[in-house]
Amino acid sequence: MTDNTHDPKLVSWVAGAGPGSDFPVQNLPLGIFSEAKGKRRPGVAIGDYILDLNGIADLLDEEWREDFAQPVLNAWLSRGNGAQRDLRARLSELLTDERYRDDVEPQLIGQSEVRMHVPCLVGDYTDFYVGINHAMNVGRQFRPDNPLLPNYKYVPIGYHGRASSIRASGEDVVRPCGQRKPPEAEAPEYGPSRRLDYELELGMWIGQGNALGERIPVRDAESHIAGWCLLNDWSARDIQGWEYQPLGPFLAKNFLSTVSPWIVTSEALAPFRMPVPARPEGDPEPLPYLQTDGDTAFAIQLEVTLMTERMRAAGAAPKVLSRGTAAAAMYWSAAQIVTHHASNGCNLQPGDLIGTGTLSTASDEGLGCLLEISEGGKRPFDLGNGETRSFLEDGDEIVLRAWCEAEGAVRIGFGECVGRVIPSR
Amino acid sequence: MTDNTHDPKLVSWVAGAGPGSDFPVQNLPLGIFSEAKGKRRPGVAIGDYILDLNGIADLLDEEWREDFAQPVLNAWLSRGNGAQRDLRARLSELLTDERYRDDVEPQLIGQSEVRMHVPCLVGDYTDFYVGINHAMNVGRQFRPDNPLLPNYKYVPIGYHGRASSIRASGEDVVRPCGQRKPPEAEAPEYGPSRRLDYELELGMWIGQGNALGERIPVRDAESHIAGWCLLNDWSARDIQGWEYQPLGPFLAKNFLSTVSPWIVTSEALAPFRMPVPARPEGDPEPLPYLQTDGDTAFAIQLEVTLMTERMRAAGAAPKVLSRGTAAAAMYWSAAQIVTHHASNGCNLQPGDLIGTGTLSTASDEGLGCLLEISEGGKRPFDLGNGETRSFLEDGDEIVLRAWCEAEGAVRIGFGECVGRVIPSR
Repeated sequence: MTDNTHDPKLVSWVAGAGPGSDFPVQNLPLGIFSEAKGKRRPGVAIGDYILDLNGIADLLDEEWREDFAQPVLNAWLSRGNGAQRDLRARLSELLTDERYRDDVEPQLIGQSEVRMHVPCLVGDYTDFYVGINHAMNVGRQFRPDNPLLPNYKYVPIGYHGRASSIRASGEDVVRPCGQRKPPEAEAPEYGPSRRLDYELELGMWIGQGNALGERIPVRDAESHIAGWCLLNDWSARDIQGWEYQPLGPFLAKNFLSTVSPWIVTSEALAPFRMPVPARPEGDPEPLPYLQTDGDTAFAIQLEVTLMTERMRAAGAAPKVLSRGTAAAAMYWSAAQIVTHHASNGCNLQPGDLIGTGTLSTASDEGLGCLLEISEGGKRPFDLGNGETRSFLEDGDEIVLRAWCEAEGAVRIGFGECVGRVIPSR
Repeated sequence: MTDNTHDPKLVSWVAGAGPGSDFPVQNLPLGIFSEAKGKRRPGVAIGDYILDLNGIADLLDEEWREDFAQPVLNAWLSRGNGAQRDLRARLSELLTDERYRDDVEPQLIGQSEVRMHVPCLVGDYTDFYVGINHAMNVGRQFRPDNPLLPNYKYVPIGYHGRASSIRASGEDVVRPCGQRKPPEAEAPEYGPSRRLDYELELGMWIGQGNALGERIPVRDAESHIAGWCLLNDWSARDIQGWEYQPLGPFLAKNFLSTVSPWIVTSEALAPFRMPVPARPEGDPEPLPYLQTDGDTAFAIQLEVTLMTERMRAAGAAPKVLSRGTAAAAMYWSAAQIVTHHASNGCNLQPGDLIGTGTLSTASDEGLGCLLEISEGGKRPFDLGNGETRSFLEDGDEIVLRAWCEAEGAVRIGFGECVGRVIPSR
């Protein structure tokens, strides 16, 4: 079967699905939504609407019915990318062919009328550190002459994060308390973080997993990635600086991680594939188990904006903090990340979330967190309305956005990943 | 109601529940078991048997019935320690009073006839590092003059581990592969770990959780701990040494963690409470949010044995690698661990597993891992049968055991936590 679901000429009959929308019929990301007092259930974004997958179950493969009656997408994702392709093809047909309109239209609900949720029950959340510019910028603050540790160009560095505190876009960020010790203080104090930060990341949702003790060859790795989202790995830099040695970040990160609610499928990203950026001359080749060829990077654009309390009151536009591209920022590809994660026999499971780590451009225009933008607080920056920032203040709202553009393809978007800081309780 | 469930005069009519058993009627730990081809369901250990809680549901509070029909104990643990106390009182009655024998006896199954499972669906697994002697011994290998980092006596150091690879006692340990780089090598290689180790830890199972953004005052912390188990945090030291900076251990640990299958309840441990050991003179007081008084430590004895392939073939007894006590090893108590974990608003959930970190005595008799016993491999030790060890060989089986003894109380045991190393796949 020829896959024509990416054809730029395809147009949905649903309102708001035209050019410029995050959700044209070429995208079709999956999520979990609920209406007021309603149950959580799976849907697909199309234009300004959500199509209720449970509601159109009669029009889909009978085998899938039970999965689309679930409050999370784990069972569906466990079917793997073959099933995802079949669903995509069928949805594309249903949403473009006027003959289905009478059956499908009653199952569309306005996105403004629903609440979105974390799309999976996250068994494990792992965060990587593949943004090499971020690693350099942060490393330079601690080790000016030697910003990258010797393992960085061999090992896709990662660590386990907290699954329980992952929330969907829109969740307030309660300023965390914790131990913090300024260098000049003799002993630490406990209190609200004074160096609260965001981190711009992409997240991958795992589809089919692997059994404990088995590995995932790098050539198969992409078949385990169901799709992508935005991820804000909120970070309390003062807590982090004091607690992180020798076992890594813990309470500095696990108070909240926010995801954009839509799983932008690996299939939807196909037109945006591109070669992995060449390694700088002199860098080692990846070890054999991590060697890939082909277009295993994706042309994903990223943007972060900030809206302060004062901007909101003044009806001002948000301030763009960064713009950049993901592929250039990633020293290791998604396939390499997945293969490395399972290279010791660690079992990945459907619905696991894997973060890339903070993605910063090599230039100052696309830095992925305030720690970089303000150089650890040493260079507060101007917001253009008389305010300055080093780290986040109460009332600040951060919005992450991502989208893909490529010649001959229809632009698709990830939706937003939003969080507003509220005072400590 | 007076709680007489600890009365040493109480004797069960079940075989094997007498003095010396791990599971007298004063213990009553909970677990999840299955018979050949049977469903997983909750049971309680008594002598050489398991009592099927689903099978005796008619004799228990009607409200609990649904929880005891589940394949994991999360729902039951979420009820909190009040319900646990009520269950304990009722089970004590049923298992000591001959009048119930005819009703209860048909629901007893020999422990040798069942398979035990991880008792909960683990949402998050966190591992701490509160074994101060372990931290000193390991730190000394890396930083001879300054083994403990400056944060250690203020912060109960912890990090997130992998939930998906937690298995119950008896699971084979597939020797993990990974990147390892001996100091003299120019570049790392990928291959089977050459420095595979065990770690002797205790684990805590969380009962009632806390909401995201809320904290747990230290005076309430113990009410969130449903019970305890043994935990073997298998570790590949060569992988760990190369990968762990700057974000902590990852693939060196997440290939498998083994728990003993029984949840030894907080109630069962009550007679073994003891004061927290005094901090050495000159050590700082804990910050106010971590200050406790009262008997928040427990008199738990620990033992590790090793059985090699050659010992097994010769019918020899296993070699005792260490014996010690948990309380003296722990710089931070269970209550402090729980309070610290939630001190930034991180939400704990029923069924979460929290490890103490490796527990080593101050003397050489109770060191909790081979990294300490062999001093990082520099001092291979004699097993007494012509064999030596620095790290684990294929075929080696490690057994962790724990038990509690106190004057005027009946000894209770944790059962075993067993794992045998098999070759890399």
